[in-house]
Amino acid sequence: LTARLQGFGTTIFTEMTRLAIQFGAVNLGQGFPNFDGPDFIKEAAIAAIRAGANQYCRMSGLPELNRAIAAHQQRFYELTYDPDSEVTVYSGATEAICATLQALCDTGDEVVLFEPFYDSYRASVTMAGAVPKVVTLHAPDFAYRPEELEAAITPKTRAILLNTPHNPTGKVFSRIELEHIASLCQRFDLIAITDEVYEHLVYEGSHVPLATLPGMRERTVLISSSGKTFSFTGWKVGHTCAPPALTAAIRCAHQFVTFCTATPFQHALATAFVADDAFFTGLIAEYRARRDRLCSGLRELGFGVLAPAGTYFVMTDIRPLGYADDVEFCRMLPEQVGVAAIPPSSFYERPAHGRHLVRWAFCKTDDLLDEALRRLQKLP
Amino acid sequence: LTARLQGFGTTIFTEMTRLAIQFGAVNLGQGFPNFDGPDFIKEAAIAAIRAGANQYCRMSGLPELNRAIAAHQQRFYELTYDPDSEVTVYSGATEAICATLQALCDTGDEVVLFEPFYDSYRASVTMAGAVPKVVTLHAPDFAYRPEELEAAITPKTRAILLNTPHNPTGKVFSRIELEHIASLCQRFDLIAITDEVYEHLVYEGSHVPLATLPGMRERTVLISSSGKTFSFTGWKVGHTCAPPALTAAIRCAHQFVTFCTATPFQHALATAFVADDAFFTGLIAEYRARRDRLCSGLRELGFGVLAPAGTYFVMTDIRPLGYADDVEFCRMLPEQVGVAAIPPSSFYERPAHGRHLVRWAFCKTDDLLDEALRRLQKLP
Ligand SMILES: CSCCC(=O)C(=O)O
Ligand SMILES: CSCCC(=O)C(=O)O
Repeated sequence: LTARLQGFGTTIFTEMTRLAIQFGAVNLGQGFPNFDGPDFIKEAAIAAIRAGANQYCRMSGLPELNRAIAAHQQRFYELTYDPDSEVTVYSGATEAICATLQALCDTGDEVVLFEPFYDSYRASVTMAGAVPKVVTLHAPDFAYRPEELEAAITPKTRAILLNTPHNPTGKVFSRIELEHIASLCQRFDLIAITDEVYEHLVYEGSHVPLATLPGMRERTVLISSSGKTFSFTGWKVGHTCAPPALTAAIRCAHQFVTFCTATPFQHALATAFVADDAFFTGLIAEYRARRDRLCSGLRELGFGVLAPAGTYFVMTDIRPLGYADDVEFCRMLPEQVGVAAIPPSSFYERPAHGRHLVRWAFCKTDDLLDEALRRLQKLP
Repeated sequence: LTARLQGFGTTIFTEMTRLAIQFGAVNLGQGFPNFDGPDFIKEAAIAAIRAGANQYCRMSGLPELNRAIAAHQQRFYELTYDPDSEVTVYSGATEAICATLQALCDTGDEVVLFEPFYDSYRASVTMAGAVPKVVTLHAPDFAYRPEELEAAITPKTRAILLNTPHNPTGKVFSRIELEHIASLCQRFDLIAITDEVYEHLVYEGSHVPLATLPGMRERTVLISSSGKTFSFTGWKVGHTCAPPALTAAIRCAHQFVTFCTATPFQHALATAFVADDAFFTGLIAEYRARRDRLCSGLRELGFGVLAPAGTYFVMTDIRPLGYADDVEFCRMLPEQVGVAAIPPSSFYERPAHGRHLVRWAFCKTDDLLDEALRRLQKLP
């Protein structure tokens, strides 16, 4: 293993999924639903396979999908992107992040991240030879301190990587925060890389893409994916929207990272992105009910619930129940209680900041959420 | 675009596919069949989608697929790999190459490549901060000179990347060559990275995985994929087989490059790798007929045909027809003749070595091959 990947080990998702399977636990760990997205999307994938759409597609994405993504950005955010020169398809948002950083970061460049972070960010920054500079979102409200963000910016800063709605905290960055971040990007000539994979899962306030702020579209690489919105995480199709020069650079990396993405699922998702409004409003209503169900159950059990404004994760403070170490707690849980969760300290550069927190996923059917809550009554 | 990716531009596949579409050319450029693989594999994918196998799978691959890949290595090569700790699944062989180099190469390490090479090799080496050292396979027989390979190895050499059966030349490395390469790997303590995606497409001699040579299994990362063998290039599922320590390192990178691969296609390919022997012998017979059809047609047209022992590509010398520049030739071809091919000079570090060559793909139905040959009679 190379120096740059030393210390990264195996992602916490792999470890917790393994424990969940080993002990037959109800898995509220990694963020995938225990149900599938709409049948019309599945049928579109099946039709594509039957129709013979099974060979390489264009490196930048299936034209129909690029167009559907552009139409989606227009419809929800009034953001206009050219499907051919500004939209690119990847094998998941994780690949989009990896390719973007490979394309835009030179050795020694710095990239500002907010902790806690989805763990691939730091690794992708490091693989690109760049250096992560971490700004903390402070529990319990996960606000960042403006002066800490400003202090993290140096002459070497190349980009700010922003995830909103935010995993694992459920935070949706406010317009005031976004305006502050935007002003810094412009003042210091930084690129913004925004991971918006939970864009449609917002329960309080609304999701504002950073690219919609004045002056930001031209310096933002907007990353999203279809896995979370359409409940097909296992299809692994992500995308970026970015101005032509940034897009050309990122495609240069992308073509050597995976070259292109599973063709039949691109056909299927081309139909998904143009789903009617009822699909999106229904999605939010369903997820809000799941969120409320899990949050109130956890609250009744005595957890300190930090109710999320977005995503399908909820963070809880485990100290009210007498626990102090998230990793110990989450390693104990599958075997002793039959439930799996994620210890967020692995999403911190300074793990101490997350030791008292545990993350639960609520992208699960009611019966599974109820069963998890029932089992959690046996907490030692 | 970062310094390390300067000069890589857009892959030649993208440029030639674009011209092929623009001018309605018969596309003998990028290596994908104009037919699909067997129906039982498609039906297995459809069944997986219907059965709800649409969420993230294990980062290292669907257990059934890892087992099927291990069984395949045993059956064809008597290579024994543990499915859990030695087999890993990726979003195509291209991702496997990228993750392997990211995991194993430190900044400044050197990796020996044979030119002409599939163009992602050099880019992936460079993205990993390593330095490609290129050894030429000399036309017309594409042998390498042993002393040139030996001279390319320095104290900084970390790995030799070997592609056999070889794209774009169709060369199948001989046992003598493999023994020489193996002895150098052992003498200088190098890792061998072998790209064997055309392993089942061999018409003369036989494919010998480098890992089968004494002392090599423990230092070899064997890369292959299902796209070429089963004629589903658009499903993008590749794999590595490597001893546990190398596998652990590569998975560390893989989990941050794409994390995991389309689940339904992993189910489908788990049934494909255990196809009966008749499938594989039938495959070779069909491809041999296609090779002979295209080669004899090109010979009749006056090309100097360098008949391939493997892969589904044939290299031709264009000088007998009065041409001297492969890029000019291939840019002219779609518009003037209605056929697309690939100029191999982009697969050389020293493009001059490939200027007089053009690569044609014969993974096409007879009618398409015949139509291409008919159109080529109009060559100006
Ligand atoms: C590949 S894991 C992607 C993120 C996620 O699902 C999680 O944080 O659980
Ligand atoms: C992603 S292109 C893979 C290699 C290939 O098919 C080619 O060389 O044509």
